[in-house]
Amino acid sequence: MMKSYKYVIGLDYGTLSGRAVMVRAGSGEVIAESVYPYPHEILHTIPGTEEKLPADYALQEVDDYVEAMYHTIRDVVEQSGCRPEDVIGIGIDATSSTFLPLSEDVKPLCKTEAFGQNPHALLKLWKHHGAQKEADRITALADERKEKFMARCGGKVNAEWMLPKLLEIAEKAPEVYEAADNFMEVSDFLVYLLTGEVTRCMCHAGYKLLWNEEDGYPSANFLGALNPRLVSLKEKLKGREVQVGECAGRLTEEMADKLGLKAGTAVAASLIDAHVAVPCAGIDGPDKALMILGTSCCMLLCSEKLSYVQGISGCVKNAVLPGLYAYEAGQSAVGDYFDWFVKNCVPGRYEREAKERGISVHELLSEKAARLVPGESGLVALDWWNGNRSYLADANLSGMILGLTLKTKPEEIYRTLLESTAFGMRAIFEAFEKGGVYAKELYACGGIVRKNPLMMQIYADILGKTIFTSQTDQGSAFGASVYAAVAAGAEAGGYDSIPEAVRAMGKVGEERYEPIPENVEAYHRLYKEYKILHDYFGAGGNEVMHRLKMQGGEEDRD
Amino acid sequence: MMKSYKYVIGLDYGTLSGRAVMVRAGSGEVIAESVYPYPHEILHTIPGTEEKLPADYALQEVDDYVEAMYHTIRDVVEQSGCRPEDVIGIGIDATSSTFLPLSEDVKPLCKTEAFGQNPHALLKLWKHHGAQKEADRITALADERKEKFMARCGGKVNAEWMLPKLLEIAEKAPEVYEAADNFMEVSDFLVYLLTGEVTRCMCHAGYKLLWNEEDGYPSANFLGALNPRLVSLKEKLKGREVQVGECAGRLTEEMADKLGLKAGTAVAASLIDAHVAVPCAGIDGPDKALMILGTSCCMLLCSEKLSYVQGISGCVKNAVLPGLYAYEAGQSAVGDYFDWFVKNCVPGRYEREAKERGISVHELLSEKAARLVPGESGLVALDWWNGNRSYLADANLSGMILGLTLKTKPEEIYRTLLESTAFGMRAIFEAFEKGGVYAKELYACGGIVRKNPLMMQIYADILGKTIFTSQTDQGSAFGASVYAAVAAGAEAGGYDSIPEAVRAMGKVGEERYEPIPENVEAYHRLYKEYKILHDYFGAGGNEVMHRLKMQGGEEDRD
Repeated sequence: MMKSYKYVIGLDYGTLSGRAVMVRAGSGEVIAESVYPYPHEILHTIPGTEEKLPADYALQEVDDYVEAMYHTIRDVVEQSGCRPEDVIGIGIDATSSTFLPLSEDVKPLCKTEAFGQNPHALLKLWKHHGAQKEADRITALADERKEKFMARCGGKVNAEWMLPKLLEIAEKAPEVYEAADNFMEVSDFLVYLLTGEVTRCMCHAGYKLLWNEEDGYPSANFLGALNPRLVSLKEKLKGREVQVGECAGRLTEEMADKLGLKAGTAVAASLIDAHVAVPCAGIDGPDKALMILGTSCCMLLCSEKLSYVQGISGCVKNAVLPGLYAYEAGQSAVGDYFDWFVKNCVPGRYEREAKERGISVHELLSEKAARLVPGESGLVALDWWNGNRSYLADANLSGMILGLTLKTKPEEIYRTLLESTAFGMRAIFEAFEKGGVYAKELYACGGIVRKNPLMMQIYADILGKTIFTSQTDQGSAFGASVYAAVAAGAEAGGYDSIPEAVRAMGKVGEERYEPIPENVEAYHRLYKEYKILHDYFGAGGNEVMHRLKMQGGEEDRD
Repeated sequence: MMKSYKYVIGLDYGTLSGRAVMVRAGSGEVIAESVYPYPHEILHTIPGTEEKLPADYALQEVDDYVEAMYHTIRDVVEQSGCRPEDVIGIGIDATSSTFLPLSEDVKPLCKTEAFGQNPHALLKLWKHHGAQKEADRITALADERKEKFMARCGGKVNAEWMLPKLLEIAEKAPEVYEAADNFMEVSDFLVYLLTGEVTRCMCHAGYKLLWNEEDGYPSANFLGALNPRLVSLKEKLKGREVQVGECAGRLTEEMADKLGLKAGTAVAASLIDAHVAVPCAGIDGPDKALMILGTSCCMLLCSEKLSYVQGISGCVKNAVLPGLYAYEAGQSAVGDYFDWFVKNCVPGRYEREAKERGISVHELLSEKAARLVPGESGLVALDWWNGNRSYLADANLSGMILGLTLKTKPEEIYRTLLESTAFGMRAIFEAFEKGGVYAKELYACGGIVRKNPLMMQIYADILGKTIFTSQTDQGSAFGASVYAAVAAGAEAGGYDSIPEAVRAMGKVGEERYEPIPENVEAYHRLYKEYKILHDYFGAGGNEVMHRLKMQGGEEDRD
């Protein structure tokens, strides 16, 4: 029972804040938590100037990340009262690809006099969309050359990945590209600050740099054809290659003093924020899909099998669980989509009713929608309000709703929108099945899971399977602590493998949703209609959505 | 200048009230007006009992119509102070087919002891939907026998017409059918009360009884195949056949006393309510289309040419203007459709803004929507919230909206709905053009015309033509007065022909809407998208709308 007296720290970097948790390694109990919002949020002007950044740029201040680390770790150590020798590991996850260029002495280039006011030397956030054209060029060239790596990323390169952003820097700011000694994910950079060791966790490289464990990075030949400067790109991707769960290094004396911890404490290889939700949910092996439901939806499925699956976001071995291929797919709008509806389409009388009863409009709509029987409204929708991320992988698709009459009520539309995201998920799972990759068990986590039981029941009914929910609300920071316990190892009071850590720390929630047979049946019929419309509008039957976006002058490309 | 001292009375029977106007025959100036709401509205129970009527029944109390006539005529005579000898004619229009069975002495059967409590002896309102199955049977049999009359009604018999309602009576209440000596439109019955003469205006028969001037009524052979009782139907359609603008008879002494008018005053042949809008709008000849825009839309187009036009509601010679074929078509939801949106889909903050500014939500949405450029929103809708009445003539179609994104605003949807009804109208005009019948000039009247200038501009832009608006707000009652002036004749101070009366009394409004060339261009592109979707969902590409209605158990048939 020694283990229960050892602790691990998990640190999670979101888009606008960092969060740390102190977790009991033996039980997974969270005993302290601290949040640090980034003071500079997302930059609108170049630091120290009034010069505005383009609207599609998303750049940040790297010091906000560093301060968040110092502040939150010290805070959870203090709150918990843990003795330094009882804290055995630290794990860090962050959004990805969120990276920055560094000098030879591993200092951010943006902190040097020469590049302090060059936007391309700043930290580029995952949702920086300045490299859309570059992403399109990479896709086109890879298609033309029939590059093998394309099968791993579902056939389309996303502007949010690292490679298009690097191409953007090489072309828009070649001086930054040339001056950079290394391009690091911010999570790897924070690991370096803690340990003094430059490592590169290959889970990022797999999803964001078209790397894979068999063939490595895209060839110099391919990269050179994109831009001659990229021929030697690999030299600027320095760092000892590590895998998730590995110990990347140990806390330096200096950092130990600064944070109130013990020098030599294990620091885990860096992690991707969404991926660390898998151990949180108690998933320790293959063929179990996790749906992370928030503003959008990220789905992760580990499998022993490597296969081509249409329209996925990526497939990387060892990225989540050892020895398994971790497939990522997702949906561009889930919570955002329901919020759009509540904000723009719900009449005043519903708002007043909700207010009088002291419930949210979402709750009121869910309550009314729960009284409907599947198919009763005669409505069906295509859930592409923010494009389609997976399977069709087409950002220029848009939403559609059909079956409207003069009797249609707001709650009927609301329920139809909920259903449409579940149908979208079903289409994704069918694409996996076509590739021979099966989700035999379904798990869900994220903000909506507890807030919207109706949605969860609809998912169970439409996907036709029990949905297990994640026990913890701590989310990613907790997941990072699980990997920290593995990096520390059993001898120190942690674990020797990820599955062992998951079984001890992560737990499946008590709430689960069972499919209701008559609903499964009704939704099976409705899904057929969804799929006909899905293929007609999404797979070449009628490209009206593309044409309308072009006519409106609002074309986004993905 | 004698004419300006003569007056005519127009009487209009709507669904829930009767309205009379006193009009100066020389100028068309309305000098008095009176409204009488029917005290019994639409009956929910059989008179004198608690027995509920089926939900799709729409029956009324005939005495409400009679009282409305006495009350409103006396009221306008009194208000105007006209001398009895200066009132030269009376015209009556009503909804159609709104009719009742009569005894041999021309008394309503529902006023006899034997049939007072039989619902099928009551006045059946146009929107009584109890005869849907009968309508379907008539269509099916006529199709099977390739009956020629079907070309005149667009290929489909509507449950609101007289023939299916007569078949309903013959089968559900054969005792009423047998006891009836005559089935009269309520407007013909009111003409009888005023004049003592039984007449039958053939405009009703043309649209509602499949009669036409060449072949007469459907053959006894056809009627007998529907039901043997109908073989001798023609014997129960008594009355001297008259045409619009004709003098049906003259005011009796008794009625003259009762109403404060002069015996011998001309009473015009009865009229259909929508049709009398044509003279109101100043339309005096062929190839000018009138769109009557209200909760739904009725379009009337007079032409010298008899042609097959797909999906029209009817085509009858002399029904509106002498010597011309009057085509009727329409849309099932216009004002109703925008009201549905305002009631169900507009957020509280819009309602509050409108309230603060002292304008309606419609006005606020119009104001915001007017700032948008055609196509800017990237949205397109199919306007079938209440099915499609003309061209596709399919009540089981439903509404669709496409192009939705997380940025879509309520005013963008509102504008898209306005546009969709104009696209629907364009599809109808194209069906006419295919039949060689052209609308060279466009006129609009009805409640929405003044209330929604944005909508009128959109119509001009989408239909690509100037839209003239009707001067008068008096609507149908005024139109009836124009026919009264023709029935009176020039010698009495009226006119000898409908075109002459129209030119003197009806006037085109000053407001007109000119198409804006760049909008015409943008909408031309958008209409192509509408038409592809229209044909895909409406003409067999994907019958999902039918299937969803069936699954929802809400199938309406038409």
